[in-house]
Amino acid sequence: MPFTLQQLSDIEEIKILKHRYFRAIDTADMELLSGLFTEDVACNYNGGTYKVSFKGRAAMLEFLANSFHSGAAAMHHGHMPEISITGDTTASGIWYLEDVFINTETDEHTFGTAIYTDSYRCVGGTWKIETTSYDRVIEVVSKFSETGARLTVQRLAATGRKPEARTDISHLVTWQA
Amino acid sequence: MPFTLQQLSDIEEIKILKHRYFRAIDTADMELLSGLFTEDVACNYNGGTYKVSFKGRAAMLEFLANSFHSGAAAMHHGHMPEISITGDTTASGIWYLEDVFINTETDEHTFGTAIYTDSYRCVGGTWKIETTSYDRVIEVVSKFSETGARLTVQRLAATGRKPEARTDISHLVTWQA
Amino acid sequence: MPFTLQQLSDIEEIKILKHRYFRAIDTADMELLSGLFTEDVACNYNGGTYKVSFKGRAAMLEFLANSFHSGAAAMHHGHMPEISITGDTTASGIWYLEDVFINTETDEHTFGTAIYTDSYRCVGGTWKIETTSYDRVIEVVSKFSETGARLTVQRLAATGRKPEARTDISHLVTWQA
Repeated sequence: MPFTLQQLSDIEEIKILKHRYFRAIDTADMELLSGLFTEDVACNYNGGTYKVSFKGRAAMLEFLANSFHSGAAAMHHGHMPEISITGDTTASGIWYLEDVFINTETDEHTFGTAIYTDSYRCVGGTWKIETTSYDRVIEVVSKFSETGARLTVQRLAATGRKPEARTDISHLVTWQA
Repeated sequence: MPFTLQQLSDIEEIKILKHRYFRAIDTADMELLSGLFTEDVACNYNGGTYKVSFKGRAAMLEFLANSFHSGAAAMHHGHMPEISITGDTTASGIWYLEDVFINTETDEHTFGTAIYTDSYRCVGGTWKIETTSYDRVIEVVSKFSETGARLTVQRLAATGRKPEARTDISHLVTWQA
Repeated sequence: MPFTLQQLSDIEEIKILKHRYFRAIDTADMELLSGLFTEDVACNYNGGTYKVSFKGRAAMLEFLANSFHSGAAAMHHGHMPEISITGDTTASGIWYLEDVFINTETDEHTFGTAIYTDSYRCVGGTWKIETTSYDRVIEVVSKFSETGARLTVQRLAATGRKPEARTDISHLVTWQA
């Protein structure tokens, strides 16, 4: 069965929604992020060295503001979407992530990939992220100082949350042994 | 000439086909892979250190099951599709690959890019990969142990083919001097 | 408001335009590049270690032919487009770049990301790049020889402009201290 025009339009809107999400996290664009989630958004990330699990838009925004902080340099690229329109206002999506995260405060360089399974809901004509989960496929961790590389641009140093403004998100994240 | 609705629908289906292919190889999802190729699929890869050339779905699946084995950690991301619908049931596509392949058994880390030229055929209403070829653009090879990095997640260690189950695919691959 | 068929068709054509651009620069396909820009194309790049600013198709082609030279190995992947159709023959786009640039002549390895803001114009039925700008998000610079890696494939060594054919583009680029 071919896609209808309405379905292709919805698919394009959902891609733009998620593209905006990735662009916004890496630049700490909290205003843009605030409009991208449903009120009851649920998040479950299964990283190599951490697990993240929480519910609600406020928790999501607090999690993101503290994770993409002024000591970080981040690249999160969501690739190869497989979007399914499951109803007039519901959809699901699979994405394949490549991410680089340099934490200059802890001297950690993480390179990884993960597969997202999301659901989306159309609220008042606008698609939003309703649930988002990922499972790691690969993760490679180094000490950044040992790579011999220099960080010559770090956007989050200017836009990310400064140490004195950060809040405790330890109830949202479980670090693995 | 603008695209028709049928063409845009076919393009989206072909993108999802190839997206599924990349997700499936990196996770060794052989069941998903088994439905993605025509019976007479032809494969020609021109890598920096290897050439791959064969015909047929059985050879493709055997090649993939042995290449994405339990000692590997792999990322294959196909980007920036240029899909052309060439007939009611035929299409061609160009993709630009970024890949990372860590072989923990041989201590090799490969980072590379390549340009794919594919053709697709619609069989009983479902688009499948009919021919797939790539030529390397860049390739960078390191000893993984010398990078100083730790592999903290390796999905294929669980899902990839174990040493005792592997079969000989040396007739499908030619290694370059 | 859902996208119209005409808009979805234009969006797909603009994606293919930019995909072709990225494929062409990394392979120094100057013939393909020559058809992708409006005559009055304007370019403004804000890199970590450089700024680029110029106008006109001839300057663009000269800039690209000298930048993607025979001593370079390059990956420029444009991801996650957010395309807006702003009129019958005008559109804008945001893209999120990942790039790797190895200069074997200066022993430099650059890994970076940037956010593009482009505009496009449809000229005689064909979409072209009218303005293109980017701002770096992250940039990491190393000495390539210190990474311990070997470059096993370098397409631009064959296709890129050789030293004796290169021209001075110092009026187009400003290097930062």
